[in-house]
Amino acid sequence: MELSSLTDDFDRRDWQDVTETDDPVRFAMVGVGWWTREQAMPAVVASDLSETTVLVSGDREKAESVASESETVEHALTYDEFHDGVASDAYDAVYVVTPNARHLEYVETAAELGKAVLCEKPMEATVERAERMVEVCDEHDATLMIAYRMQTEPAVRRAKELISAGYVGDPVFVHGNMTEPILELVPNPDQWRLDWDLSGGCAAMDIGIYSLNTARFLLDDDPLRVRGSVASVQPEFDDVPDEHAAFQLDFPGNTFALCTASQNAHMASHIRVTGTEGQLRIEPAFYPWDDRKLHLSHGDADVQIEFEQRDQMQEEFEYFAHCLLTDAEPHADGEHGLTDIRAIKAVYEAAESGETVELD
Amino acid sequence: MELSSLTDDFDRRDWQDVTETDDPVRFAMVGVGWWTREQAMPAVVASDLSETTVLVSGDREKAESVASESETVEHALTYDEFHDGVASDAYDAVYVVTPNARHLEYVETAAELGKAVLCEKPMEATVERAERMVEVCDEHDATLMIAYRMQTEPAVRRAKELISAGYVGDPVFVHGNMTEPILELVPNPDQWRLDWDLSGGCAAMDIGIYSLNTARFLLDDDPLRVRGSVASVQPEFDDVPDEHAAFQLDFPGNTFALCTASQNAHMASHIRVTGTEGQLRIEPAFYPWDDRKLHLSHGDADVQIEFEQRDQMQEEFEYFAHCLLTDAEPHADGEHGLTDIRAIKAVYEAAESGETVELD
Repeated sequence: MELSSLTDDFDRRDWQDVTETDDPVRFAMVGVGWWTREQAMPAVVASDLSETTVLVSGDREKAESVASESETVEHALTYDEFHDGVASDAYDAVYVVTPNARHLEYVETAAELGKAVLCEKPMEATVERAERMVEVCDEHDATLMIAYRMQTEPAVRRAKELISAGYVGDPVFVHGNMTEPILELVPNPDQWRLDWDLSGGCAAMDIGIYSLNTARFLLDDDPLRVRGSVASVQPEFDDVPDEHAAFQLDFPGNTFALCTASQNAHMASHIRVTGTEGQLRIEPAFYPWDDRKLHLSHGDADVQIEFEQRDQMQEEFEYFAHCLLTDAEPHADGEHGLTDIRAIKAVYEAAESGETVELD
Repeated sequence: MELSSLTDDFDRRDWQDVTETDDPVRFAMVGVGWWTREQAMPAVVASDLSETTVLVSGDREKAESVASESETVEHALTYDEFHDGVASDAYDAVYVVTPNARHLEYVETAAELGKAVLCEKPMEATVERAERMVEVCDEHDATLMIAYRMQTEPAVRRAKELISAGYVGDPVFVHGNMTEPILELVPNPDQWRLDWDLSGGCAAMDIGIYSLNTARFLLDDDPLRVRGSVASVQPEFDDVPDEHAAFQLDFPGNTFALCTASQNAHMASHIRVTGTEGQLRIEPAFYPWDDRKLHLSHGDADVQIEFEQRDQMQEEFEYFAHCLLTDAEPHADGEHGLTDIRAIKAVYEAAESGETVELD
């Protein structure tokens, strides 16, 4: 890779052929919480290939209120109306951003209605429900993408290209971390992330998945086995085992990823790959509002690349819409997401037993 | 801690009362390899509290050649002469820097001769031999310090003070890494580090110990249990299990340290502590020739502290000599070193069995 390609066109969309359309992908947003309102909807407004036409919420008034502030939303539906297929001609695809254990039901309906699905990660709260999600999308031939926004993050894509080109040699170690004080960010001890039945897990499930999935994406491989520890200390985390989670993934080729995640720690994130010939690090890495930076070392030289940020959600929606408009299969499909759910559930099993858990 | 104390006097020796002496600690250096010649002896020359008076080597000519270039060395001895007590009036303390499995014999002789001992880390190649080293020093009431130069590294000491003062809140995660291409640094496949009988281990034993011991020092605590993986890939590493090593240490208080070490990777080192309130990182951390930097985050603020380097070996020799001159017990005593040997041996056991190994 030429250094010039890291500076002249750092944030290029290497996946993009189509840059405009008269027929944008029309989204129904299922779940109208702060993430949808403040991250997803503005990203779609800014995008060239998609628009939001339908909002679906348990609270019709909230949906209508948000809809009234949008120039493109035509319908504000309840969950029941969505399941009944109301206004299904008004959207082509569904973005599912409900609590984890309530993803499947909306994906099922969307697939039955013949819609494409962009489902937030983790894809579901249990392996069985995630498997069912893959099945139902297969049955209805519905496109399913799991919303790993790091996979369209320019710094991560450039890092992946560098690794593929041999910049770090053979990858040996990955260190990844994502930590946040969830009870300061969302000051409600009854939130679904702290409810095992709704979330299927806390630190590992909600944010440990960033290090796990980004490691998989960068290494272009899947883990063979996992071991680790989890701990819940504060009473607000009594219902989940993992206020904190630390786990190690063994990848093929003797590459080891060491990941940490906490819902009760200083907000920080990074991912680092050390290889036989060099090292790269994205820090900050995972929060959309941080200025991501790419740090490179090779031989005796160090390079630090700062770049004008792209909106991660805009990149993700454009990529998904581009896949739909060009009949391409998204990289992060249902099977890809299922691998993460199996690995994270294995973290809990390994922490419980103290043993290494083999992944199939 | 005041910010001014991080800038005005970053490299202060908080352990020092005595700054000069008419009666410096006189060292016999046991082992006259490149580390002794290029790192230890110049550090002692620059120090105020110690001097080198005796060199001990298997190769008398080499010892005499090195001695001839020193203004203070009075005697060049063979190992046999050392064991026979030749010139034992000419030194007060012994610095042992032979291959790991040959530390014990020189420490035994030094203790019997009534000398204090500074022994390189890891202290020995097996738990049994490390235990015997502690015993023999106890029997002869000999002061024994294990040469963890990070414990007198200014960046590490300031980091420890910050952690103690609550800067990061409760520590939750430690990430540590030390990697190097040993066959480029020492281009000899027959070197003792790759010989299990002489080293007792490779990546984990030789350099994984930096992350392990620095984590213990920063957290002021010892690990409860360990798990991990090791791998040897290249034929030069056939005699040892760990060309690469990745391991996780669970500390009391639900603090988790994730450590990586490789003898066949890009040269790099760092240690990072993430807590409930902040984060600190020393990077580069462990190589004496690197410009160490201390990176701090707390709330929304980031601070990066660069400082004029202190010579790590000079700090270490001054600290040890200072302990001897003031009748103080060194922090890193034999029991302290033994804890690392037990933990590293448990890494090999855990990697072999796939299970978590409890430490006593």
